[in-house]
Order: sequence, then C-alpha cells, then structure tokens
Amino acid sequence: MTPRVRIVGTGLIGTSLGIALSRAGYAVVLSDPSPTACALARDLGAGSLAAQGDPAPDVVVVAAPPDVAGEVVAGELDRWPEAVVTDVASVKVAVLDRVRDLGGDLTRYVGSHPMAGRERSGAVAARGDLFDGRAWVVVPSEESSPAAVDAVRAVASAAGGTVSTMSPTDHDAAVAVVSHVPQLASSLVAGRLRDLSDPAVALSGQGIRDVTRVAASDPQLWTQILAGNAAAVREVLAHVHAELGEVITALDGLADGDGVGAREVLARIVAQGNAGHARIPGKHGAAPTAYTTVVVLVPDEPGELARLLHDVGDAGVNLEDLHLEHGLGQPFGLAEVSVLPAVAERLADELLARGWRLHG
Amino acid sequence: MTPRVRIVGTGLIGTSLGIALSRAGYAVVLSDPSPTACALARDLGAGSLAAQGDPAPDVVVVAAPPDVAGEVVAGELDRWPEAVVTDVASVKVAVLDRVRDLGGDLTRYVGSHPMAGRERSGAVAARGDLFDGRAWVVVPSEESSPAAVDAVRAVASAAGGTVSTMSPTDHDAAVAVVSHVPQLASSLVAGRLRDLSDPAVALSGQGIRDVTRVAASDPQLWTQILAGNAAAVREVLAHVHAELGEVITALDGLADGDGVGAREVLARIVAQGNAGHARIPGKHGAAPTAYTTVVVLVPDEPGELARLLHDVGDAGVNLEDLHLEHGLGQPFGLAEVSVLPAVAERLADELLARGWRLHG
Repeated sequence: MTPRVRIVGTGLIGTSLGIALSRAGYAVVLSDPSPTACALARDLGAGSLAAQGDPAPDVVVVAAPPDVAGEVVAGELDRWPEAVVTDVASVKVAVLDRVRDLGGDLTRYVGSHPMAGRERSGAVAARGDLFDGRAWVVVPSEESSPAAVDAVRAVASAAGGTVSTMSPTDHDAAVAVVSHVPQLASSLVAGRLRDLSDPAVALSGQGIRDVTRVAASDPQLWTQILAGNAAAVREVLAHVHAELGEVITALDGLADGDGVGAREVLARIVAQGNAGHARIPGKHGAAPTAYTTVVVLVPDEPGELARLLHDVGDAGVNLEDLHLEHGLGQPFGLAEVSVLPAVAERLADELLARGWRLHG
Repeated sequence: MTPRVRIVGTGLIGTSLGIALSRAGYAVVLSDPSPTACALARDLGAGSLAAQGDPAPDVVVVAAPPDVAGEVVAGELDRWPEAVVTDVASVKVAVLDRVRDLGGDLTRYVGSHPMAGRERSGAVAARGDLFDGRAWVVVPSEESSPAAVDAVRAVASAAGGTVSTMSPTDHDAAVAVVSHVPQLASSLVAGRLRDLSDPAVALSGQGIRDVTRVAASDPQLWTQILAGNAAAVREVLAHVHAELGEVITALDGLADGDGVGAREVLARIVAQGNAGHARIPGKHGAAPTAYTTVVVLVPDEPGELARLLHDVGDAGVNLEDLHLEHGLGQPFGLAEVSVLPAVAERLADELLARGWRLHG
C-alpha cells in the first residue's frame, strides 16, 4: 500500500519534502494558507492539492513557521484521528508544550528536526535532495507511541535524511550549543563592525570572515527560533556571559592594575576553546581527525583552482577540507588543502613538481 | 647601496622576513637568544649570523614575542644610534608605551604589524612568500620621523606586504574588533562543546564549524596578544557583554514572563550583525559584493571536486569563493560555489548540462 502523507506548509522545507517523498513513491497532498504557494509547490512536483474527499493521511507533516507549529499540529491531530503527526520546527520543547496545552493526542505526535537549508527560503528554492545526507533528528515525547515514532522515522529516511533520535529537552539543549549560541555570537561580533572606519574594516582577515559568516542570516526567522528555545539558549548564554565577565575583569586588571591572575583567565578561556573545538566530528560523522594543511598560492584566474584540485586528484590524494583565503590587493589567493597527515608530504612534493608555489 | 637589515628574533615571522628580504637584495643579519634557532634561520636562507664588526644596520626589525618586544626595541635603539627600528608585534600601543618608558629615541622607532601566518610557528615553518599580498600595517607614533616611516614602509613593501598606515591607537582598536574579539567569541562558543554528549555534538553543522575554526589557536600566544591589547579589547567586549546581557534578559522574559519587547531585542541583535557583516570587504579589498551561490553535490572521491572546478573554469566563470560542507554519514559533500550574480544562471545551466546535481 502506498503511504499517504499530508504536508501542511509549502515553504522551502515542506515543498522539498513533498518532492522527495513523491519521488520515493509516497502519495503526497499539499496544504498551505496561501493558494498560490500551494499551487507553486504542486507545479514543482511536491504532490497534489488537498481536496474534499481525500482519503485520510497516514502521516501529517507540519512545515509551518516555528511560532505557529504547535497550533497547527494540534489542529491536524484533531482533524485526522488516526494519523501520526510530526512537525519540522528547529525547536522542540515549545512545540510539544503547546500541543499538550491545546489537548492534542500526544501518542500520535512525534516532533522532528531536519537540519537542512535555511539560508534560502520559499518553494522556489526547494529541491528534492535537500535532506540527502543531512541529520534528521526524530524527537518523541514520553507519550509518543512506538508505532508513531516508526512512522516518522520512515518518512525522514525516505526523504534521504540521516535519522537519529533524541528527547525534546536533549534536542533543544544540543541545538542551543551547536546552532543558536554560535548564531548569536556571530551576530554580536559582526555588529561591532558597524562603527569601524573603512581602513579598520579593511584589516579583516579569514578569522573574522569565518566567525561572522552566519551573521548574514534572516533576523525574523532567528527571532522565532531563539524565542522558541529561550530556556535552553539562556542557560548556555549565562555561562558565556559569566566567562566574558571574567575576561573583562582580567583585562581591567591588565589595563589599570597589577593584572595578577589575569593571564591565567585568558589562557584558560582559549584552552577551553581548543578542547571544545577538538570535539567537533570530522567528515561523515567520523571521529575528529587532525588533518595536515598544505597551503598553495593560486592565481586568481578562471580554471586555476580547478587545475590545482585536478593535480591533487591526480596525485591520488583525497581532499578532506578546503579553505580559500583571498589576498589583499593581490591577483591570487591561498588555498588551504587539508589532507590526511600520512599523504601530506607526498602531496606537497607532487604539487611542487607540477610548478605550484607552496606557502607557510 | 645595498640596504642593511638586522632581524632580532628568528621565529616564523623573523625567518620568513629574512628570506624575503635576502631575495629582494637586502643584506640581512640575524640575531636570536637561541644560537640553534638562529643557525636554522641562516640555513634556510634568511641571512647571515650577526657578528662582531658587522657594519651598523640601516633598519632593525624586532620579531620577538609581543610581551618582550618593547624591551628589545629600546635596547636596539640604544645600541644602533643611527638605525631605524621597527617591530612586528600584533599590538602596538603597549610596545610604544614600553619603548617610551625605557627612554628609547622615538623619532627612530616605527611600529609595524604584518598580518600573516600565525597558526604555525618557528623557523621551520618559514617561507619567503609569507607576506605576499597580506596586509602590513605601518604604525608611526607622533614622534616618528618621516624618514623612519619611509624606511619601514620600504622594508614592508620589499617583503611583499600590502602596506597601509595607521596610528597606534587606531590600529589596536581595529584589531580588537576584527581579530581579538572574534578570537575570544570563537573560544567561548567552542568551550561550550566540552560538556555536550556525543550525539549532541554530532548535530554540529557548518555554522558552528565556521564560528569555531579559530578556536584551535595557541593559548600562550593569544594570552600575550590579548594582554598586550587589554584596553582596546575590553572596550569592545564591554559592548558585547552588555548586548549579551540584553539578550539574556529578553530570553528570561520569554521563558518565564510575558516577553514584552523581547523579540525586538533578538531581531535587533541579528539585524545589527547583518549590517556589520555587510561591511567586510570582498576579494582584493574591493567593495563587498553580494555573490550568488550555486550549490553542487560532489561525490567524495579523489578528483571529483577538481572535475567540478574544471567545469566551472571551462564555463569561463571565475570562482569568487568556495565552501565545502560534508554530508553526515554520506559519501558526498556539498560545494557552495560563489560567483558574480550575472553569471550564476549560466553556470548552473552549464553544470547541469555536464551532469552535476545542483542543490537548494
């Protein structure tokens, strides 16, 4: 039997999911407050428009904005008394609490969070492979029935996601640390650039570019996300705020006083960052690996970076990571090629032999 | 006449500078408290060992650690009464103050800050092209003579740096914002990962990877840098600390109270980050450009990324930036190819025609 999925909300996530599930053989119907958005999603191959007399869905996926997800989930639970309902909001405790407050049948509700594409929005940006290889966290409550959890895992899997399971509290605490607090830190650091002179901003190097890349994100969406995870985010921020206070006190001591103990504080904060950074998993969720970096000077002309990476591939070396750094006022950039330590020396030799200039 | 340069301190910066200046035709002599380090620098082509009876240098470059640079500069000013003396420490007011306190002749002292390679250290990591195309800020005091400033600019230029000039106060205020505060923010965010469970850390995406990349930096060096720029860094941090406090109060209101006004605070902080981020210069110090990103699925095999970039080059399109994002548990990654908006559509068409799968 073809599983029937109803998708409520045809933005980027809902439409992409519709395309993915339709391709996987699901019968998908689409619903959205905007008839135009819904018709666009249909035209993109995300499913058919919901209509009177449709058979009841097996699974409803609520892909509404985080601040209305709870209401919509509760409404769908009421409307389809046999269906399993999930949502895709990036915060989970707030949605669950709202569904509970509204008296929704929690045995049939299982939250989920596909960690995919937020920088663009709307159905026009939708792709059937949006979830391929991305983490999709399935977030049951204590009341969720095992059958409901299985149904949501099956949908996540069929969409291409790499499925894991977490409790709502654990999920929200995790994304506070790995997503919401980094976003705020990035925004706060970037905000300091507003009043700087042009020559001062011109000293920006790769460090601040990396730290502030996510500072370009949408304020409205992030307000919803942060507000929806207020309790977990403030707990992490309280630690950051206290440590920042320690740093300021240490700097006060160095600038105005005798600075006794101040260097210990600074060294400890940077060392703690080393320890935390080392925990981030390597490629493919494998254990973190210390890669060796070979830095190559690349002329800023079409095809030069391709030629470099062609030469890397020709050497039989797999690229683990790549960073580009642009020269200031110069017609070339630096490519930092990260590879397994065992092959770095051979790669460097091969590149030199092919006429590349290596760096630092 | 061949200009004579004396380099005091043969670590990464001093040795790299010696190699660069020797290649540029300068007569370089080397001095370091460690005879072994000094001999290694000489063997790498950085210059000859300082000896009794050497002619007086025209310019002395002090490449000692930031916390002793002032003492060493004052000593060199005394020892060579005709020479111009500069240093390469990444903080400038503290060094100048120390030289003044020690009674050094400030007309002949001009600070400088080559913004190059700090992630590796020691003479073994030295390269003659370390400064090529990197910003090199020349930092005169009010007392510096024009001739001394010219001499230091000439050395910076000969080493390959892109030279600009700033006052000590402006320099330190600028690097506090574009380098020192981002480093601290990155360390503080990364530090929060220490106590997280493995499944929670596994949710780390590209955002936190970017924000925390510089958190891998050396605690000892950063303690010296932050301590040396304590006054400017704490001023920037005071703003960040206050705004962070505002965010926490807003989140408190959302978690426990009525949250009136809270969303305005969150939206404002993220919007300020947008505005600050937009000021970071584009490639080659040009005005920031909004690039369009084409996202391509790349199989994780040697040569595949090269093939992609070859195809980009073949299409006659210049790559402005490139980010790699690794799939979680999947044998491919996403390559975010940034190009000028005018060519993005054509590039997407060309890539599709060559069989690439595009994404979101």
